Amino acid sequence: MTLTISSDEYFMKEALKEARKAFERDEVPVGAVVVCDKTIVARAHNLTETLNDVTAHAEMQAFTAAANYLGGKYLKDCTLYVTLEPCLMCAGAAYWTQIGKIIYGASDEKRGFSTFKTKVLHPSTQIKNALLADESTQLLQAFFEKKRKL
Amino acid sequence: MTLTISSDEYFMKEALKEARKAFERDEVPVGAVVVCDKTIVARAHNLTETLNDVTAHAEMQAFTAAANYLGGKYLKDCTLYVTLEPCLMCAGAAYWTQIGKIIYGASDEKRGFSTFKTKVLHPSTQIKNALLADESTQLLQAFFEKKRKL
Repeated sequence: MTLTISSDEYFMKEALKEARKAFERDEVPVGAVVVCDKTIVARAHNLTETLNDVTAHAEMQAFTAAANYLGGKYLKDCTLYVTLEPCLMCAGAAYWTQIGKIIYGASDEKRGFSTFKTKVLHPSTQIKNALLADESTQLLQAFFEKKRKL
Repeated sequence: MTLTISSDEYFMKEALKEARKAFERDEVPVGAVVVCDKTIVARAHNLTETLNDVTAHAEMQAFTAAANYLGGKYLKDCTLYVTLEPCLMCAGAAYWTQIGKIIYGASDEKRGFSTFKTKVLHPSTQIKNALLADESTQLLQAFFEKKRKL
């Protein structure tokens, strides 16, 4: 498969790079990038332990950084690539950003926003799931296996 | 009515002071304090316009500040006082903090977490609403009336 630099796979691989940075910091390995006009305008990884802050999910930081970069708080023409399905907090933040599209990797059957019956995202936000889900899942499994051995 | 310095009313009045600071900054006037052991450990007001960041709700900042002050990311023994019912993002963040109690003022019939059918908060989080709701509502109404006149 050819991987053009503007394909969804390309950007998800960038999000996976971020997830690996989280892994190396002993954080639950989740990574995200925000893409606007085929350009990465923000990249982030989970930092809840490092920052001692439950709000420091990859997506939250990516939204803040993207808005800062773009100079506007709405992300209508942007896509969020995130390696794990967003939780309710992050989906709620995505609602406020009115982000154009969310593409995520692995599903989170415990705390993913889609496990809630009600519609959480903004009506104009498109959604796509299971992109490179195996890579994301393997990284998460490796993390939790490492934790169990400690 | 005697207002002891550890009453719910006292702390909600402190949250209302924060909301007024938001009003003066031309922000949607919402304020919050986090209280632990009868002490205010964090205070914050909505800064979404000032920071150009939809995640800068009063509650989100208060959670971050409280965790920073307490040196732990869980707020099990704390109470959040907030002048307006938390949205889904803030309720989702509250879940992660496992906060002991949330007391809010005015209801938000459009985006308040309780408008969603499903249970959003952590099972151990207690909830109380409509505390000094009129004061909060009056401030919000004054803000939106001012905006409409512009």
